[in-house]
Amino acid sequence: MAEALRIGIAGLGTVGASVARVLAQKSAELARQCGREIVVSAVSARDATRDRGVDLSAAQWFSDPLDLAKNADIDVFVELIGGEEGPARESVMAALQAGRHVVTANKALLARHGVELAQAAEDKGILLNYEAAVAGGIPVIKTMREAMAGNTVNRIFGILNGTCNYILTRMEAEGLSFEDCLKDAQRLGYAEADPTFDIEGNDTAHKLSILTSLAFGTRIAADDIYLEGISNITQADIRAAGELGYRIKLLGVAVRTENGIEQRVHPTMVPTSSVIAQVHGVTNAVAIETDILGELLLSGPGAGGNATASAVIGDIADIAKSQPGFQHGPVFGRPVKELHPYQKARMRVHSGGYFIRLTVHDRVGVFAAIANRMAQNEISLESIVQHANGANPETQKTVILVTHETTETAVRQAVAGIMDDGHMVDKPQVIRIERAG
Amino acid sequence: MAEALRIGIAGLGTVGASVARVLAQKSAELARQCGREIVVSAVSARDATRDRGVDLSAAQWFSDPLDLAKNADIDVFVELIGGEEGPARESVMAALQAGRHVVTANKALLARHGVELAQAAEDKGILLNYEAAVAGGIPVIKTMREAMAGNTVNRIFGILNGTCNYILTRMEAEGLSFEDCLKDAQRLGYAEADPTFDIEGNDTAHKLSILTSLAFGTRIAADDIYLEGISNITQADIRAAGELGYRIKLLGVAVRTENGIEQRVHPTMVPTSSVIAQVHGVTNAVAIETDILGELLLSGPGAGGNATASAVIGDIADIAKSQPGFQHGPVFGRPVKELHPYQKARMRVHSGGYFIRLTVHDRVGVFAAIANRMAQNEISLESIVQHANGANPETQKTVILVTHETTETAVRQAVAGIMDDGHMVDKPQVIRIERAG
Repeated sequence: MAEALRIGIAGLGTVGASVARVLAQKSAELARQCGREIVVSAVSARDATRDRGVDLSAAQWFSDPLDLAKNADIDVFVELIGGEEGPARESVMAALQAGRHVVTANKALLARHGVELAQAAEDKGILLNYEAAVAGGIPVIKTMREAMAGNTVNRIFGILNGTCNYILTRMEAEGLSFEDCLKDAQRLGYAEADPTFDIEGNDTAHKLSILTSLAFGTRIAADDIYLEGISNITQADIRAAGELGYRIKLLGVAVRTENGIEQRVHPTMVPTSSVIAQVHGVTNAVAIETDILGELLLSGPGAGGNATASAVIGDIADIAKSQPGFQHGPVFGRPVKELHPYQKARMRVHSGGYFIRLTVHDRVGVFAAIANRMAQNEISLESIVQHANGANPETQKTVILVTHETTETAVRQAVAGIMDDGHMVDKPQVIRIERAG
Repeated sequence: MAEALRIGIAGLGTVGASVARVLAQKSAELARQCGREIVVSAVSARDATRDRGVDLSAAQWFSDPLDLAKNADIDVFVELIGGEEGPARESVMAALQAGRHVVTANKALLARHGVELAQAAEDKGILLNYEAAVAGGIPVIKTMREAMAGNTVNRIFGILNGTCNYILTRMEAEGLSFEDCLKDAQRLGYAEADPTFDIEGNDTAHKLSILTSLAFGTRIAADDIYLEGISNITQADIRAAGELGYRIKLLGVAVRTENGIEQRVHPTMVPTSSVIAQVHGVTNAVAIETDILGELLLSGPGAGGNATASAVIGDIADIAKSQPGFQHGPVFGRPVKELHPYQKARMRVHSGGYFIRLTVHDRVGVFAAIANRMAQNEISLESIVQHANGANPETQKTVILVTHETTETAVRQAVAGIMDDGHMVDKPQVIRIERAG
């Protein structure tokens, strides 16, 4: 059997501890699969004394991950610290520059500095693996980077944030408010004390930016993503969606259009009968549409210590199976110099169906005014539902419109026109519809 | 750039022609991804003159695939002939023995001779890749062989035959009979003129036997699979399933039990709200449950020239990216000598829920007799539906029972008892229920 693969784990939080435990528990099986042993020979963590359910006494302990990355006697540096700057970035770059393979679960780091890090890995002819950075345990990176060789991707979309999907699932299943579901998510550990990053879509955007690069061969453009979170989704939206045969999911979507690549994260109506609509709770899912393969959907656990550890260990095993000097294809699917500049398709030229919910005064002529604004902007309607408003049934009406394919600009102008007409009681709600099989 | 990878394609039917076309169309992109060109330098087909939409004039033509496998100037032999014996088997073995990597889409060949072929590949330190052999374009082999390193699989199940899923989907959506849907499937090219192999579950069993080996590290045991096809599924079953919150799918299931590994292919009730229940038409899906990762589901096109070609090309690209001498992990996840003998769990100890549909004479005491037979065999019932029989409402009744978890033996004995009691008009229908998320 070949020499053992020596790994150094920086960060022994939930994921890091899971990785160490699973490597210990499954060492014989992993050695059979990889043809060599995988040994944790160095670790770094803030607290060396905490019981993590695994004996790490044989490993060399470092208080500084940068020191570990540079000086430990390791073949692979496993970064599980988190954060886009500071120790994570410095130690990953140092490990690559020292010619050590890197495995990371750090989506923020890759979203911000992925291209620079990929270049460093290429320069040294080593591997930078990051399966755990997107959709946790789902092997979407491997699928796109390896299994889909030769495919041209047209669209990729997914449920990439378990917190949001948990909240939306409970809102629909139990009729609870967004705020109540968020509190429960926090109590259960599915949401942070400050949940902004999850519920406003930033976490989804980080993951989407990585998928976009792999899908379209473009440089990562994490700042060029249209962003809308789920905090303004109400029971009225969820009920109306259900009546019309839709379910609301927070999706990250990247599409090749004639104007460039559209990257967007927003609450989205998907048909209730679609596969992705059945993805409930903290589960994630990614759908990929290509010219050769067609439509592929992967769903599974998007977070959690063990699921994330599974992806990290898959990445480590790939390195263990490779011979010295072997390069397993470029980090983002093609060499950095071949990555296209990202050409952004602006959101106002987005084309698609829309769900529009309006709360209006119940008076003569309101509906005609709405219909006129739609017609002026050449928006044709698939369905119209009008009923007495739940809160003020005597004086207000709820009007729900589902449009055929139209543009973002047309919808914004139509809605602005309706607001100008002075019939609106409340802010209009606009939710984009995504085609899904 | 490294030297071009020279491939020889044996078999230029639908899939072979797609592979050649896509390799030609995407040659520049593939070279970027793989770091070297992929060149079709040899082909073999019965008819060298047919127009396949791709210029193969630069390739060396062989009339005999065995000749190609042995004598062509190639690095990779791509077997797309089909069939478990004859030219496919001989040429794949010859290619391996000649030290050429092999890519195949041939499930029957692997189900019958996979272990022997894996041993030949191991002896030479070369690759035998077969992503296209199971579930077409879905990267389930790569996922199990690479991404799930270190995971212990507890259960794997899937919709592995597009013909059956197409028929069941149309039966449910349009209320048509099995026979009418089969005829349409034949007309559309989804089913063969002799459809036995698909509809009786043999095709699913071949694919399942390969997944079982990967999942449990066992030697392939394609003959030790319990087999039931879909030809006796009726509208009465589909309607009753729907009323009870289930949908009928032909599943291949492999489960680790205390008695060994259970491998079975049969029509199965899955909850209508599960993700796999939304997999319609010719689409395939595979669900994998493991100790570390949890539950993963992959769905996508299970057949068709392009989808299958996508998997074949992914396999070729993996070889193109590897250095000479590199071995990408064992063929069935672990070295052949480490594959466990397959220990079969017998079907009569199968444990699970059951759907039982009985057509009985409408007379006093029938229901009590049925209930007694259930009680005698310690079967507890989750639900009971009884209504007048559609065909003979005056004199016959339909009784539908859904059991809690029980055993195959108990159900068989109970049903035999009910038949002995002499109340049955018709053969009872028994369909197993599978837990699915």
